[in-house]
Amino acid sequence: MMNALVYRGPGQVVVEQRPKPIIQSPTDAIVRMQKTTICGTDLHILNGDVPTCPNGRILGHEGVGIVESVGSSVASFKPGDEVIIACITSCATCEFCRRGMPSHCKEGGWTLGHTIDGTQAEYVRIPHAQSSLHSANVKGVNKEVLVMISDALPTGFECGTVNGNIQPGSTVAVIGGGPVGLSALLTAQFYSPSTLIMIDLDENRLATAKSLGATHSIKSGPDTVEAVMEITEGRGVDTVVEAVGIPKTFELCQEIVAVGGTIANLGVHGTKADIHLEKLWSMNLTIRTRLVDAVTIPRLIKIVEAGRIDPQVLITHPFKFSDISQAYSTFGAAAQNNLLKVVINFD
Amino acid sequence: MMNALVYRGPGQVVVEQRPKPIIQSPTDAIVRMQKTTICGTDLHILNGDVPTCPNGRILGHEGVGIVESVGSSVASFKPGDEVIIACITSCATCEFCRRGMPSHCKEGGWTLGHTIDGTQAEYVRIPHAQSSLHSANVKGVNKEVLVMISDALPTGFECGTVNGNIQPGSTVAVIGGGPVGLSALLTAQFYSPSTLIMIDLDENRLATAKSLGATHSIKSGPDTVEAVMEITEGRGVDTVVEAVGIPKTFELCQEIVAVGGTIANLGVHGTKADIHLEKLWSMNLTIRTRLVDAVTIPRLIKIVEAGRIDPQVLITHPFKFSDISQAYSTFGAAAQNNLLKVVINFD
Amino acid sequence: MMNALVYRGPGQVVVEQRPKPIIQSPTDAIVRMQKTTICGTDLHILNGDVPTCPNGRILGHEGVGIVESVGSSVASFKPGDEVIIACITSCATCEFCRRGMPSHCKEGGWTLGHTIDGTQAEYVRIPHAQSSLHSANVKGVNKEVLVMISDALPTGFECGTVNGNIQPGSTVAVIGGGPVGLSALLTAQFYSPSTLIMIDLDENRLATAKSLGATHSIKSGPDTVEAVMEITEGRGVDTVVEAVGIPKTFELCQEIVAVGGTIANLGVHGTKADIHLEKLWSMNLTIRTRLVDAVTIPRLIKIVEAGRIDPQVLITHPFKFSDISQAYSTFGAAAQNNLLKVVINFD
Amino acid sequence: MMNALVYRGPGQVVVEQRPKPIIQSPTDAIVRMQKTTICGTDLHILNGDVPTCPNGRILGHEGVGIVESVGSSVASFKPGDEVIIACITSCATCEFCRRGMPSHCKEGGWTLGHTIDGTQAEYVRIPHAQSSLHSANVKGVNKEVLVMISDALPTGFECGTVNGNIQPGSTVAVIGGGPVGLSALLTAQFYSPSTLIMIDLDENRLATAKSLGATHSIKSGPDTVEAVMEITEGRGVDTVVEAVGIPKTFELCQEIVAVGGTIANLGVHGTKADIHLEKLWSMNLTIRTRLVDAVTIPRLIKIVEAGRIDPQVLITHPFKFSDISQAYSTFGAAAQNNLLKVVINFD
Repeated sequence: MMNALVYRGPGQVVVEQRPKPIIQSPTDAIVRMQKTTICGTDLHILNGDVPTCPNGRILGHEGVGIVESVGSSVASFKPGDEVIIACITSCATCEFCRRGMPSHCKEGGWTLGHTIDGTQAEYVRIPHAQSSLHSANVKGVNKEVLVMISDALPTGFECGTVNGNIQPGSTVAVIGGGPVGLSALLTAQFYSPSTLIMIDLDENRLATAKSLGATHSIKSGPDTVEAVMEITEGRGVDTVVEAVGIPKTFELCQEIVAVGGTIANLGVHGTKADIHLEKLWSMNLTIRTRLVDAVTIPRLIKIVEAGRIDPQVLITHPFKFSDISQAYSTFGAAAQNNLLKVVINFD
Repeated sequence: MMNALVYRGPGQVVVEQRPKPIIQSPTDAIVRMQKTTICGTDLHILNGDVPTCPNGRILGHEGVGIVESVGSSVASFKPGDEVIIACITSCATCEFCRRGMPSHCKEGGWTLGHTIDGTQAEYVRIPHAQSSLHSANVKGVNKEVLVMISDALPTGFECGTVNGNIQPGSTVAVIGGGPVGLSALLTAQFYSPSTLIMIDLDENRLATAKSLGATHSIKSGPDTVEAVMEITEGRGVDTVVEAVGIPKTFELCQEIVAVGGTIANLGVHGTKADIHLEKLWSMNLTIRTRLVDAVTIPRLIKIVEAGRIDPQVLITHPFKFSDISQAYSTFGAAAQNNLLKVVINFD
Repeated sequence: MMNALVYRGPGQVVVEQRPKPIIQSPTDAIVRMQKTTICGTDLHILNGDVPTCPNGRILGHEGVGIVESVGSSVASFKPGDEVIIACITSCATCEFCRRGMPSHCKEGGWTLGHTIDGTQAEYVRIPHAQSSLHSANVKGVNKEVLVMISDALPTGFECGTVNGNIQPGSTVAVIGGGPVGLSALLTAQFYSPSTLIMIDLDENRLATAKSLGATHSIKSGPDTVEAVMEITEGRGVDTVVEAVGIPKTFELCQEIVAVGGTIANLGVHGTKADIHLEKLWSMNLTIRTRLVDAVTIPRLIKIVEAGRIDPQVLITHPFKFSDISQAYSTFGAAAQNNLLKVVINFD
Repeated sequence: MMNALVYRGPGQVVVEQRPKPIIQSPTDAIVRMQKTTICGTDLHILNGDVPTCPNGRILGHEGVGIVESVGSSVASFKPGDEVIIACITSCATCEFCRRGMPSHCKEGGWTLGHTIDGTQAEYVRIPHAQSSLHSANVKGVNKEVLVMISDALPTGFECGTVNGNIQPGSTVAVIGGGPVGLSALLTAQFYSPSTLIMIDLDENRLATAKSLGATHSIKSGPDTVEAVMEITEGRGVDTVVEAVGIPKTFELCQEIVAVGGTIANLGVHGTKADIHLEKLWSMNLTIRTRLVDAVTIPRLIKIVEAGRIDPQVLITHPFKFSDISQAYSTFGAAAQNNLLKVVINFD
């Protein structure tokens, strides 16, 4: 048996004793968890917003651990290997995987802590292990930081920076300074924009953004558009990253994007929004959405190993796994606690 | 003096005597018109929807003609040269032109028949002639067809086909079978999609689309989405080209686009629309808008010269310039008249 | 036991009795062959040019067949499924596969009929079956044509057309009208070039090329460069596909490529060549090489199913498997026999 | 009359009195020079290697100055404006300019100090001023640094970094630590490679490279390939920038490039080289050449203004214009003098 954090219906997460997972398919691996974290998506589940996640599910889709056992067709990992778990499991061979979209894998996608049991437990079963795990043998980088490579960093990089077509010398605004917004801010700098604006309501997050490379910060309010226009000499920004997920911020994107620019949507939206096509139709714009595919994990490992960015700053609150319920409540009030990401330690 | 078609306020166009235009800048050319046409945008002006177009303006932004005179810095054209007039005039050197967006040229853009006098007159002044004219010396292609290269074909190609990222083997739907929708349909075939669906309310336009290469046609109605899903085995289409310009068709795009797909907006919208981010946020989509830049005209000339497409089919109704008022009324009831594009002959 | 075509050292291929292959790994499939073909590469082996292919190897890396049995982790194919065999086997998860280069797969690549037994036998074992097989359930296309999708068509498409960056309206020359040169010629047309020149020594191949869509053909000789320049008004061609594989033809590419153009190398070269950097350094050129990755097979299936090209024309000579030795000798004198591709039938 | 540095045949440059240039075309501007520099290409002329440059030519194609007068069609500059002179003059409207290749402009290209008089004089006539000049109104950047934006930085950026397809996390080697090699090294960092190796014979240049961001330096010698392979764990580098221009270094590129990699040629070659197609044909490589187009100057201005790189380090030796002959001899022995770029001051 093992301890696991189990979703028990809206508002309810409980640590329970559960059987240790076992190999079910030749492509599986069992991983003994060392570190995990909590994602904003876990709170969405807790709020009852994710009906596809049933009562009784072990939550969590991020983390690092040690391979305990592997199925007969897993050739690239063996017991004892330290691994990073991708937030997306993928078969690597379906039509979506072949097109670089494992987020829509016919046999995988966002499964962990959602449609199958996840990583907030002492052990986890990882399907399609060969394509869903990555070696954690990364020189000079601690395991806490590697947890950020499961989901937070690839989400910011793929859905924000890459989808935002950020270019050397271009101007960028990120709306929302939570962990994925800050991940977009960090990874945006891989492409050397000349202007990098963080827009948020929270002074602490704005200060953090400045310390992480934002060239400007704007406290969100009635003058936000005017402030962006002043910084950009009336042009607007070449890229806006939407990292909040509400109609109001999506509309703000439309007000501050420059002719020829890109809106990259990172936010998880629960409702429709207005799109002002009467203005946008002639503006040569691109709007992109994306569920993280986690395909940039190998690249991100190299960049973090090379020291080009330090995601350590995202990790503000460590907890023991035995205190995971407290971690949830602290994370649930992230802004009040000046919290970005927690890390949950199993040892 | 010369004859010209002049906008005289909502609902009013009149043929008037006007002074022949003269060279005003070293970069100008004066062109004696041979053929022009009427664009849907001209009807927008006539409907009073384009407040930037003043009473008294000579309309028209398309056509072919013969260079009458050139300014002192126009080196690549001389009197007597036959030319195609781009619907977009461009300085070629401002920041937008340098970035491939002459539609937003600081000294040009959509000027002809809008902010300066246009091509529905016996003579027209073309600013920045060197970048706004193209040689009409195209072997084996008649001048009527070349008129389609001023605006209709590049609009379909740039805003629909290129922006839609159409690829060999991909699936495409075009919503709206008017001249630009059909131009998208024609140019989409440059990239050999496997499925090419036309959606329209009008049986005639659907029949035309089939004759021009559509693999399927759907009469728009309550079963449209179901019909698309049946053709695409439930996937939706990789590319949707919106060529109508109303909220309803933009919403239809969102219902029929496949995961990983692209919505290319061709329509001129007068009002906002809904964007269903609660569904789209995780679909890895791209939505693009564009005002035609006319940058593909040199390429289109080569393709038409090579006989890869025959835009002749778009031209259904010829008129003499002396009958241009009648041409406007016939064009205004295009669907009833089974009309696609008129051509106005000056000789 | 089964019959198989076995390489027995330079100049020697023999039909022998061999044990039927069996599942060795959970990712394997055994396929009963229906149709296969012979590739130019098989002749390279026969000539002793491929030292990595040992005496005793069953040759062949192309074909269609019926799945006989599958390993425990093969979920997407089952006994009885008709399949196309990719010429490249791939694990789908190594660093090269993740980057779209299964040709350099750490566990696969060109293995069949090379480092493991191949498809010129009644049965073949396919490693990593899930990523190395494709459903042959393609409506309205006969199995002969599907054999062309194993290798010939993706080689022409990936190494010639895609690597050559062929664009609507651009000018293209293909040097060498053998099966892969013709595959490049066929697939080049997916992108609607305005000019498509075939250059070869053989009149028959030139005639075939014309019938398959070449706009011009040039019998290779001292005036080849002049002929290309006359067709292109002195510019040279935007894309040259080298489909021969000798220094002389690679040098010809350099003489006929236009400023800003691309040389796509399809040929298998056995020796170094000269590169005239003293001329090329300032010409804004791209030169690309590639071992076929077979990643475009799903796309090619859709295009062939849609009837956009008909590869039937490539298949000139059918043989029974019992006559495969004769097929080898006929194929070895392809030009004399006006032969493009053979097809070997097992029934 | 004015003073000018005039080429007087191989080995000979002399300061002479020459008439001040005058406006010859409506698109011209006359610029009073403030600062210029000497390029490696000027030494090529001096060596007699550039037969298209006649005896009597005023040399130089870089610099900043003040607009003295403009032709009647120059709208975006006026007398008194401070300007950066692009090393490439361009009409902005010919087929090459439209395709982003002003280096091959039919009316321009590398003209200054080559086919028309250049910038190593008190005044210079700039043809097509509107597309060949850029505002020098760049906050917080001194004019010396702006001189680097005429040619050195765009050459490194366009021909090395952009052509080399440098990506976040990729591995890069630059062969040759002269000014353009170092410009490639500086601009490569816009894309955050994980490994950035400088290879040169000169210890001083290697030390400079390390101070400018190289992660590794290799003193060129018999062990160079082995050293690169050790750094890259046997893979080779994803991008090699060739910044020397001799067959030996071009062959070295082929030895150290990784499967799937790119060779970007920056060097000016005077002779052919070997290309080892017998090895390269199957390596999925890209080789690119380019004459600088100077199209990235607007972007580089923004990046330098934003402080993302500091090109000041490239400028090692200042001279007065009256000492330009001495500047030539010092520059001619750059390595002995630990010289990278000179700057010539006219005041």
